[in-house]
Amino acid sequence: MQSKILSRRDLDFLLFEWLDVESLTTRKRFEDHSRETFSAALDTAEQVATDLFAPHNKKSDNNEPHFDGTTVTIIPEVKTALDAFAAAGLLAAGQDYEFDGMQLPSVMEKATVAWFTAANVATSAYIFLTVANANTLLKCATPRQVEQYVRPMFAGQFFGTMCLSEPQAGSSLSDITTRAEPDPVDGADGERQYRLTGNKMWISAGEHDLAGNIVHLVLAKIPGPDGRPIAGVKGISLFIVPKFVLDENGAPGEHNDVVLAGLNHKMGNRGTTNCLLNFGEGKYKPHGKAGAIGYLVGNVHQGLANMFHMMNEARIGVGLGAAVLGVTGYLHALDYARNRPQGRHPAEKDPVKPQVAIIGHTDVRRMLLAQKAYAEGALALVLYCARLVDEQRSAESDEARRHAGQLLDFLTPIAKSWPSQWCVEANSLAIQVHGGYGYTREYNVEQFYRDNRLNAIHEGTHGIHGLDLLGRKVSIQDGALFRAVSAEIGKTISNAREHGASAELQAYADELDAIWQRVATVTAALYAAGDMNKTLANASVYLEAVGHAVVAWIWLEQAMLAERQLTSAADTDQDFYRGKLQACRYFFKWELPKVGPQLALLASIDTTTLDMQDAWF
Amino acid sequence: MQSKILSRRDLDFLLFEWLDVESLTTRKRFEDHSRETFSAALDTAEQVATDLFAPHNKKSDNNEPHFDGTTVTIIPEVKTALDAFAAAGLLAAGQDYEFDGMQLPSVMEKATVAWFTAANVATSAYIFLTVANANTLLKCATPRQVEQYVRPMFAGQFFGTMCLSEPQAGSSLSDITTRAEPDPVDGADGERQYRLTGNKMWISAGEHDLAGNIVHLVLAKIPGPDGRPIAGVKGISLFIVPKFVLDENGAPGEHNDVVLAGLNHKMGNRGTTNCLLNFGEGKYKPHGKAGAIGYLVGNVHQGLANMFHMMNEARIGVGLGAAVLGVTGYLHALDYARNRPQGRHPAEKDPVKPQVAIIGHTDVRRMLLAQKAYAEGALALVLYCARLVDEQRSAESDEARRHAGQLLDFLTPIAKSWPSQWCVEANSLAIQVHGGYGYTREYNVEQFYRDNRLNAIHEGTHGIHGLDLLGRKVSIQDGALFRAVSAEIGKTISNAREHGASAELQAYADELDAIWQRVATVTAALYAAGDMNKTLANASVYLEAVGHAVVAWIWLEQAMLAERQLTSAADTDQDFYRGKLQACRYFFKWELPKVGPQLALLASIDTTTLDMQDAWF
Repeated sequence: MQSKILSRRDLDFLLFEWLDVESLTTRKRFEDHSRETFSAALDTAEQVATDLFAPHNKKSDNNEPHFDGTTVTIIPEVKTALDAFAAAGLLAAGQDYEFDGMQLPSVMEKATVAWFTAANVATSAYIFLTVANANTLLKCATPRQVEQYVRPMFAGQFFGTMCLSEPQAGSSLSDITTRAEPDPVDGADGERQYRLTGNKMWISAGEHDLAGNIVHLVLAKIPGPDGRPIAGVKGISLFIVPKFVLDENGAPGEHNDVVLAGLNHKMGNRGTTNCLLNFGEGKYKPHGKAGAIGYLVGNVHQGLANMFHMMNEARIGVGLGAAVLGVTGYLHALDYARNRPQGRHPAEKDPVKPQVAIIGHTDVRRMLLAQKAYAEGALALVLYCARLVDEQRSAESDEARRHAGQLLDFLTPIAKSWPSQWCVEANSLAIQVHGGYGYTREYNVEQFYRDNRLNAIHEGTHGIHGLDLLGRKVSIQDGALFRAVSAEIGKTISNAREHGASAELQAYADELDAIWQRVATVTAALYAAGDMNKTLANASVYLEAVGHAVVAWIWLEQAMLAERQLTSAADTDQDFYRGKLQACRYFFKWELPKVGPQLALLASIDTTTLDMQDAWF
Repeated sequence: MQSKILSRRDLDFLLFEWLDVESLTTRKRFEDHSRETFSAALDTAEQVATDLFAPHNKKSDNNEPHFDGTTVTIIPEVKTALDAFAAAGLLAAGQDYEFDGMQLPSVMEKATVAWFTAANVATSAYIFLTVANANTLLKCATPRQVEQYVRPMFAGQFFGTMCLSEPQAGSSLSDITTRAEPDPVDGADGERQYRLTGNKMWISAGEHDLAGNIVHLVLAKIPGPDGRPIAGVKGISLFIVPKFVLDENGAPGEHNDVVLAGLNHKMGNRGTTNCLLNFGEGKYKPHGKAGAIGYLVGNVHQGLANMFHMMNEARIGVGLGAAVLGVTGYLHALDYARNRPQGRHPAEKDPVKPQVAIIGHTDVRRMLLAQKAYAEGALALVLYCARLVDEQRSAESDEARRHAGQLLDFLTPIAKSWPSQWCVEANSLAIQVHGGYGYTREYNVEQFYRDNRLNAIHEGTHGIHGLDLLGRKVSIQDGALFRAVSAEIGKTISNAREHGASAELQAYADELDAIWQRVATVTAALYAAGDMNKTLANASVYLEAVGHAVVAWIWLEQAMLAERQLTSAADTDQDFYRGKLQACRYFFKWELPKVGPQLALLASIDTTTLDMQDAWF
């Protein structure tokens, strides 16, 4: 039976036919791997996700974590699933053998994780945060900290969090006020320690009993010589604050002075605890004294730079989550449309004829095709980015690594935002295909829609990624990132023209060429405005327009490959490739033209929103 | 304090300055009314909605009606609110004095109801259904039925429902199978009666103890001479099936054979019971026999035609509900944006400067302005339609009444669908303005988003209204409806050109003119395709494109008036009119251009979705 979580056929197409993941096995780090080991990882992921993650997705939504003022209760299926995930070695899937890892390439790790996120985004969040936390520490922690915290996280004994936001400082990290004061006394184990006080907001996985310890990674400010924190982001340092302070044997000991002040109750993602945490309020007195014990990670005042390792990884992760929620919603809607009889064709006047399955209605096919175009386009984009991570880390030449890094930097805000916007739309269409049933919690699609709506908010809102793309990514390195992406898009266009693509795909290549040239012109015009307020006023539209152009490129890539494969495809595979071609056609005929008015608006340096006055609302 | 439910200033603008509702008081039916009585009705509505409806909106969402297998429990605030509504005489606001009504014009009735829907859509649904039910009966029931059922409904003693859909027949009413067989025995009161058997699905307000009786209006088929129901919609008749059969005194007596089989658990609108009802399963034996007792309403086989009175009214009502949820979400976001400090302007480099209220960020103003454009545009469109109802009913000349009817018929699918699409988008932007807070149930906006998502589904899905508009409304009466709307839009354009509108508004009029001419050309081209499958394949896009053009027209109307009023406006009112002008500017610069690619797609008679094969998905 076709899984309704993800399409393995599509994953195989993207990974093996398009991104040529198998070629990575020629590299030293991946030399033990093969198509077979990659496939085995996907098989395991599908199996565990199907057996242990998907079945409690709805139950977890209906029974969100409950805080009675003392402890948090989570349905037991969550721990069972996470233990199985850890036992399968998947927490360390991308890590060195030294950590009992599998040394999977990043793109394979993401494809593996995709099954779990699609099956149960709330339970998967505990994994996602633990891996991101551990990867951050690997970049900047001491070997001793790696032993103490990273190793138990990859083994599934400890879980991790990211503590950035505060109630008065959500997107604006420069305004955080959590303080970290050097403790005159060293820790029991002789480690230099700090005492933290402050409140952190929106901490996912911030409290639970799913693992033996919780490793909080906390941004805080060390007061300057005058006893006051240094203003702005420059004063921020990064700390490990474990829920239980480790004893001399490295085992969780005394409860640290970190207290759950309350849970946020969310529209979706209900199975993930999302917490307000108080550090250092004095409820617990570790080592006999109030104040949360923390350990500096990396250098003083480098907290934000160190955290950005995690944030870029997390952004691709958010894009992946959004994409696969789009895919699973699409597969649910497809299954429903094939099995639900309702109505007749416009030409059929005989009411005695049996009703047709609703997939027979053109408008239902429109909604399914749009979902396919959004969701498979988004997934392809995110896996392409994950593939770039592998290039950035392990390509042979410096030039190749640098080029991959430039592409990745440019594409990250798009890979985070585009799926978050359009796969929510896909989920809305999945509801619409189901009609009234889709609006009820008796079916699954309304949950995907609620769960997915978070993705345009966390890890940087849509607006912030617009500013990142237009205000930073297009201009840094004297425009080298933009040129790198333009070169890649140019390659695809040349390939279409010079290597026998059909007239139709050549026409799409021409359209993409024209649009991308307009993007370049508009970008120059925005910077020529000479006033950053005007340049950046419509950055969100810029993000959306460039995002659509980029996904059109990704679809053209997929279609060109599908066209080639079709000539030699087995009968049973012909339909798959024709579906790819039709989705590409849909994207170029229905979606890409939306970019035209957006670019025209941007080119006009429109100031409608800039000019709007508070009093006029 | 400015209400966050609706803007009274905007309502006054739309009703009194734009739609000239006061002029209706010269008509016989409304001769007792004046600006003062209209204002008093709005005052009462605002007060009751604020005091009794808004306060339990979240509680009702958190504590949805519970069915223990026997009875349904609803939080007590719902009944208190509905009783107060009825006590204020608002159930009969639009009705004749004979029913203790106020004889308010339709447009004033809708503006009054708007407060309740915006404050609490779930509790208001009980009102909405009761009034729609009663209005249907007024059109086709016998005087006796009016006395027995309509009068108690307007008095708030009975509530009503609409029982159309069945599990196997949602949008396809021709496939309903509920049977109504003539009962050999007359009712206790001598009334001819039928016995109904069948299952009805999606029955809002289908079971509760909020009123002394529930009057179900049920579509069912009377078997033909061969004992089999007549196929298709032609065999459908309409019946009253009361929850409690009336005794000889007209009081609710024996429990009818109507049983709640289960509640649907919805994503939003949770406070409204939504039921699967079994008719005639034999649990109750009214008058000693199984089978739900029902009374024919209107003529045999005219059920659907009679129900369409209700459906057209309900469609405007759905559009109104969607619009005002958009408005209330906008007002909540506006209030939050004015009071939430976060971040600094792009040019501000000093991190010690205090954070600014987020309304100071251009992208936040973009999101607020978009909400204003969507929500106030939608509300204006719906009130315009309600005003047409008054013209249709009470204009002096036959010609004026006919013209109003044609406009209304054409605009109904748009007034239902456009707000349902774009005010959900507005609610999404309201969440986005709130950031992470907006995604939590501690705030209100996520509920608006969930509640509003229903509106593109019930009372005809988006796809069905696309078919209604392109497949029926543009072609019936030899295109007279389209010509009627074109004439009205033409009048606005002429007014802009000939009566001193600013150069800016004249330019918008030119744009609207060009777009509407393209709409006409595209409509002709679609019909010239010569194959209804091709003509109708992209009907949903047609609905969206025409909807945007119509709302652009409505915005131009508002802006032209605002420009005129501005010349003589008090200082305190200048901001209001400037806001209207800026929202119009936003719509013409940001929204109307979206129609270009849609019309191009339609003109190309695109068959991408028509050609898509099931096997290719």
